[in-house]
Amino acid sequence: MRILIINGPNLDLLGSREPEIYGHRSFEDFLGELHHAFPRCDLDYFQTNDEGAIVNVLRERSADVDAFILNAGGYSHTSVAIHDTIKVIGRPVVEVHISNIHAREPFRHHTITGAACVGIITGFGLEGYRMAVDHLLRRA
Amino acid sequence: MRILIINGPNLDLLGSREPEIYGHRSFEDFLGELHHAFPRCDLDYFQTNDEGAIVNVLRERSADVDAFILNAGGYSHTSVAIHDTIKVIGRPVVEVHISNIHAREPFRHHTITGAACVGIITGFGLEGYRMAVDHLLRRA
Amino acid sequence: MRILIINGPNLDLLGSREPEIYGHRSFEDFLGELHHAFPRCDLDYFQTNDEGAIVNVLRERSADVDAFILNAGGYSHTSVAIHDTIKVIGRPVVEVHISNIHAREPFRHHTITGAACVGIITGFGLEGYRMAVDHLLRRA
Amino acid sequence: MRILIINGPNLDLLGSREPEIYGHRSFEDFLGELHHAFPRCDLDYFQTNDEGAIVNVLRERSADVDAFILNAGGYSHTSVAIHDTIKVIGRPVVEVHISNIHAREPFRHHTITGAACVGIITGFGLEGYRMAVDHLLRRA
Amino acid sequence: MRILIINGPNLDLLGSREPEIYGHRSFEDFLGELHHAFPRCDLDYFQTNDEGAIVNVLRERSADVDAFILNAGGYSHTSVAIHDTIKVIGRPVVEVHISNIHAREPFRHHTITGAACVGIITGFGLEGYRMAVDHLLRRA
Amino acid sequence: MRILIINGPNLDLLGSREPEIYGHRSFEDFLGELHHAFPRCDLDYFQTNDEGAIVNVLRERSADVDAFILNAGGYSHTSVAIHDTIKVIGRPVVEVHISNIHAREPFRHHTITGAACVGIITGFGLEGYRMAVDHLLRRA
Amino acid sequence: MRILIINGPNLDLLGSREPEIYGHRSFEDFLGELHHAFPRCDLDYFQTNDEGAIVNVLRERSADVDAFILNAGGYSHTSVAIHDTIKVIGRPVVEVHISNIHAREPFRHHTITGAACVGIITGFGLEGYRMAVDHLLRRA
Amino acid sequence: MRILIINGPNLDLLGSREPEIYGHRSFEDFLGELHHAFPRCDLDYFQTNDEGAIVNVLRERSADVDAFILNAGGYSHTSVAIHDTIKVIGRPVVEVHISNIHAREPFRHHTITGAACVGIITGFGLEGYRMAVDHLLRRA
Amino acid sequence: MRILIINGPNLDLLGSREPEIYGHRSFEDFLGELHHAFPRCDLDYFQTNDEGAIVNVLRERSADVDAFILNAGGYSHTSVAIHDTIKVIGRPVVEVHISNIHAREPFRHHTITGAACVGIITGFGLEGYRMAVDHLLRRA
Amino acid sequence: MRILIINGPNLDLLGSREPEIYGHRSFEDFLGELHHAFPRCDLDYFQTNDEGAIVNVLRERSADVDAFILNAGGYSHTSVAIHDTIKVIGRPVVEVHISNIHAREPFRHHTITGAACVGIITGFGLEGYRMAVDHLLRRA
Amino acid sequence: MRILIINGPNLDLLGSREPEIYGHRSFEDFLGELHHAFPRCDLDYFQTNDEGAIVNVLRERSADVDAFILNAGGYSHTSVAIHDTIKVIGRPVVEVHISNIHAREPFRHHTITGAACVGIITGFGLEGYRMAVDHLLRRA
Amino acid sequence: MRILIINGPNLDLLGSREPEIYGHRSFEDFLGELHHAFPRCDLDYFQTNDEGAIVNVLRERSADVDAFILNAGGYSHTSVAIHDTIKVIGRPVVEVHISNIHAREPFRHHTITGAACVGIITGFGLEGYRMAVDHLLRRA
Repeated sequence: MRILIINGPNLDLLGSREPEIYGHRSFEDFLGELHHAFPRCDLDYFQTNDEGAIVNVLRERSADVDAFILNAGGYSHTSVAIHDTIKVIGRPVVEVHISNIHAREPFRHHTITGAACVGIITGFGLEGYRMAVDHLLRRA
Repeated sequence: MRILIINGPNLDLLGSREPEIYGHRSFEDFLGELHHAFPRCDLDYFQTNDEGAIVNVLRERSADVDAFILNAGGYSHTSVAIHDTIKVIGRPVVEVHISNIHAREPFRHHTITGAACVGIITGFGLEGYRMAVDHLLRRA
Repeated sequence: MRILIINGPNLDLLGSREPEIYGHRSFEDFLGELHHAFPRCDLDYFQTNDEGAIVNVLRERSADVDAFILNAGGYSHTSVAIHDTIKVIGRPVVEVHISNIHAREPFRHHTITGAACVGIITGFGLEGYRMAVDHLLRRA
Repeated sequence: MRILIINGPNLDLLGSREPEIYGHRSFEDFLGELHHAFPRCDLDYFQTNDEGAIVNVLRERSADVDAFILNAGGYSHTSVAIHDTIKVIGRPVVEVHISNIHAREPFRHHTITGAACVGIITGFGLEGYRMAVDHLLRRA
Repeated sequence: MRILIINGPNLDLLGSREPEIYGHRSFEDFLGELHHAFPRCDLDYFQTNDEGAIVNVLRERSADVDAFILNAGGYSHTSVAIHDTIKVIGRPVVEVHISNIHAREPFRHHTITGAACVGIITGFGLEGYRMAVDHLLRRA
Repeated sequence: MRILIINGPNLDLLGSREPEIYGHRSFEDFLGELHHAFPRCDLDYFQTNDEGAIVNVLRERSADVDAFILNAGGYSHTSVAIHDTIKVIGRPVVEVHISNIHAREPFRHHTITGAACVGIITGFGLEGYRMAVDHLLRRA
Repeated sequence: MRILIINGPNLDLLGSREPEIYGHRSFEDFLGELHHAFPRCDLDYFQTNDEGAIVNVLRERSADVDAFILNAGGYSHTSVAIHDTIKVIGRPVVEVHISNIHAREPFRHHTITGAACVGIITGFGLEGYRMAVDHLLRRA
Repeated sequence: MRILIINGPNLDLLGSREPEIYGHRSFEDFLGELHHAFPRCDLDYFQTNDEGAIVNVLRERSADVDAFILNAGGYSHTSVAIHDTIKVIGRPVVEVHISNIHAREPFRHHTITGAACVGIITGFGLEGYRMAVDHLLRRA
Repeated sequence: MRILIINGPNLDLLGSREPEIYGHRSFEDFLGELHHAFPRCDLDYFQTNDEGAIVNVLRERSADVDAFILNAGGYSHTSVAIHDTIKVIGRPVVEVHISNIHAREPFRHHTITGAACVGIITGFGLEGYRMAVDHLLRRA
Repeated sequence: MRILIINGPNLDLLGSREPEIYGHRSFEDFLGELHHAFPRCDLDYFQTNDEGAIVNVLRERSADVDAFILNAGGYSHTSVAIHDTIKVIGRPVVEVHISNIHAREPFRHHTITGAACVGIITGFGLEGYRMAVDHLLRRA
Repeated sequence: MRILIINGPNLDLLGSREPEIYGHRSFEDFLGELHHAFPRCDLDYFQTNDEGAIVNVLRERSADVDAFILNAGGYSHTSVAIHDTIKVIGRPVVEVHISNIHAREPFRHHTITGAACVGIITGFGLEGYRMAVDHLLRRA
Repeated sequence: MRILIINGPNLDLLGSREPEIYGHRSFEDFLGELHHAFPRCDLDYFQTNDEGAIVNVLRERSADVDAFILNAGGYSHTSVAIHDTIKVIGRPVVEVHISNIHAREPFRHHTITGAACVGIITGFGLEGYRMAVDHLLRRA
């Protein structure tokens, strides 16, 4: 099974950015762990700060990928374009948020992109990505 | 590790209630699977249709349980009392919703109880409970 | 035909509670009248001040009752849990309000429980229950 | 007792208009049934697509009619003018909606005309008119 | 093909009314042009200042007309009655606004009548009617 | 100077309708007084319960009348069509409300028709009409 | 009869302040005209830029004045304190606005002070004050 | 004089629950102090986590108690059922909140139960209960 | 202990102003009672109708006073300036309202000044001031 | 005349994406039809999933193009940046939506980009583009 | 060039008031620095806690001052009266806030007074005043 | 000191774009002036129409730049992504708007990006950039 993890703006900074909210592990370290934990899964990774690039990668990679894990960061709360794209591509997308978005500022309570996803995992730190991979493998 | 799963109103009907939203498996069958999958975890289960009973069981069982998995059903969207209780008990609570609450009626988009939880898993069907147990075991 | 009338908080006080809004007849007297008026109908009655008890009684009695008449009082305007239960039980529920809820305080204009019912009768005093019974018998 | 039934826009189309919402019986057929069911009641009928005409007929017929049954259709949700007229005429008005307005689009949940009526019957199909007539006869 | 153009309040004043918004051509002149441009189309025209009359003409003329072009003017933003009628008549209705309603006062941004139409053309002046006719002919 | 007074729904009932709000004088009596008080003014009067008729009479009579006094009653709070008409006719319109609309229900606080008028007089009972006539004569 | 006219912030600048909204006449000139027009009326005048001073003058002068004319300017839209004072003093207060507040910015559409007044005259320029005096004399 | 103090969800945890908000004294200790301070007052105490139980105890104990002190905790902000009960029982109820609800999260600013009480005391810690007892004794 | 009671607009009128809301005792009489009841407390009193004067007196008197009791009347619901001042002065302020502000018009439900106070006492009539003094003495 | 058609996110998928909403024709096929239908018009086409690319192409191509047809897809409802760009470029822009945006989810009812355009065509499927070209040619 | 700096409520407390928000420098010290930095500028200073006094000083000093720098503190968010005064006086006014009002409580995000100013400087501490003086000198 | 000025969509058009709002100077000319005015400051400049590019440049250049001046244009009002980036980069960012955003359309009153900045300068034209540079130099 091929899974592409897409991270939005600033999520490459994990480990250094606001560690009291996002924790101390870097995403690269964590990705190593994930590869180790799921050896029979073909895990790919893409990070971008650009809304349009998220639309593009969802579109392009849906040809060769079985599922997506998406953390669109700040775009989650406003992007109708990503929402529409998820509806279009015919591949399951799982949304992950590292922090509990319902326990932060009100403008982070609502997820427009998540409304088009299979499901949403929010508040479990980087472990949320592991839960998402695990779910996608079982679902397959 | 001892985990108590608390299900709110009508969640005992899983398998027969609106299967196009909630699926065809009964919770009892699924619970058997969970026990089998996590043999070293002491998994307990409680179902009630009563808001006050959820407050009570969170309070009382926090003495002998390490963590909770909570699906408060319709009370998730309105109960300040359960929210306050989660803040008080000093035990991690993971909120699970079977359907993707962000993709249903607007009055289900917001979770007052979830804002007091460690994290929220929504939209993965009964698998959400497995993801919650798995997370709590790793977290321990 | 078996019908269960469920009255919510304080509706056992009819006749003494704010008679300028709710009238002077007690519900027990009225119930006698109803039994007399519909001799071939098996009319049962349950009153509770508890939201969870309304959920429970809808659930439990749907096994042996053909239809419900529900006046959930103050819970009508806020209870997602009762709304979900009505959707689940597979029995027709008719909502009755003694006073015209659209002519009172704004927080009484909207009925969340009523949105899941067959229909709503509001403003006709105790006669609303008679209209509900009459409708359920004709409908059968 | 003389009762005038007033139907607003498109209610003359019952039976052909969106039968999944409004049912298959025509209002004329149903009216025959009503005359038959209430032989000692003088039942009159008026249909119009015009807001002003509803105001006029309420005003004019209040001289020779004992009560009104009103289904103002789309005007129910916006007409302050009809609301004011009901308050003025000194005759009981019962509002009827064929479908359950609380279970449809949000702009149909609120009834401005109903706030000035004795009571509202919503969701029982054409039977709602029978319930209204029955109530008015008992009330007399 | 028979098309009826229905214009609402004050649209007979085109050419003299607020020309900086609505332009200098009268609708009659323009109608001559339309007849000339679409010789094989049977174009009829009706203007009224009355909401009920719009409901009536949509209802009555749906028997002998293939499609409607509707500019309900000020009623577009508030009329549930016209919305319901468009849904009922089983004929395509195209909504036209001469000015760009999204660039004017906020209470003109929303069109309740347009939500029931095939489509909406707004901001192109009188040419909007020509676009509507052209579309209806192609669609046929 | 020719002035046309236009009264909307139910204002012909003044003197009998809710006298604690609208007072005990009938409009006809009051009109006699007005004619007497302003002998050199040609005062005409029109009452209708119909929104479209108000649009029509504003349109038609603007040819032979110098100014209008308008009390559109319940239509004042919702009619974009009358608002647009007042903007079109090129004659001063003074809005009068008998009761103080800012001291009644919230849905009467806002006047859409008044926003297109020269000015608004509200709360002075029938004297408001006299003030309007007096103003129009001085303004001329 | 003694009447006190109270003008709020900047109304002493009439004639020079934004003349396209407020006109070219100064209030002092106009006051001369008023004294001339109503010789048997004892007209007094007070201007202040201070909310508390309006409260004070209403309170203090209610002992020796029969009625007030109040244009509280910018305080009209926010002052609960002036609203409460008008309710307390037991003297009729007429609110005047020079421009039509319903045709300006939305934050000027609502008048909190006016809700406590006998009535409101808005949009007639300085003539509004004359209308207010005239009304108070007739009312006496 | 007999007074019943009713505490809602989690208020039995005072002293251990979030002491930075609710302080370090337990309610039982404090209750001892109260009995000592008001020896001639018959002070009773009831704690529950259940909304319906609050309704029930208000109803049942109003037969033998002169007044109530109510801290409904999280139910204060949402319970129409408790509000209606307070209106029904014919006994004075004083609402107490330990913390200043106006200085916390917005969803705690509004009190639906308090709107039916004699008065509300908020922000004075456990002393609020003493103030309530003191008031009820003076009031008697 | 020195306490300054500050009363805002119109509170010097107690006893004569709307006695059905505010009661029949004058504040001066009541103040005598307070001095008598708390002989070892140095109670001072200041009344003003001016928002700025409340700011000033809080600022100036915080040098020689131990605590304040504030009833800012109509300014309570709008004054950010008084709110900021309470935060600045480093002296406890107790807010008192004579009537139950949560049971009156919606614009009185929210208190901006109270959010900066120690606590709020609302609905107990003049006794609220006694409760405030009593609390401040115990707190010292 | 040179016209550039700009399509936003996912509009290159027409024909395969949600055909029940967007129809079965691919845009490329349709574009061939357009070239054929308007031989003397120089029609160019650009598709992007990127908001900034839409801003850029509007800016850059306004040098060599006479007009634009824009379907910004999901960006239509949120992009102030595209709105500002349309205002800046000095070329007519016609907005096209394939589906009737007023008949879909509420977050699609409002168009921020359309408020800066000449006009908007919504609901006519791909024909909307033809109507836009036709209008631009006539307008020239 | 003559510039008057007007500071609103509590801004004389700078240096002692909430230093984590407003810093440790007193305004008097800072003013000395400003005089030193801009020797050819005639800088005057006025502080008041009174809304009306701000209106008055803007009015009176506009005769002998070339420009104003205004920090109206808590009045910035509510005062229509100051807004109107700024529009009237014909002198440039620069608004300064010491803290970043967009990063504090929501009721501080909006500035009614600032909407009438030349521009607003917010978040730069006391340096904001220097930036304002510098701008006014360059602008001259 | 190294400062990077980032301008968002269309700000390269200054001088030609809507000069009544944005003035007649081009940004390039102005930049020359800035270099001349601050010779010891290393001023760099970047313009983009792309939201993601703003995120990227903030991220990348924070390594070699001491501070940023940001005018994100239309993205200021909606971009959570840029807001989050500013919080992450650990460099002071000053937001500049050329026009007074509080005096324009309501959707420009709120700045999401500015809430994460040191401060905001709005309404001073291109001079706002000079004020920002000057502040950053003094701050260093």
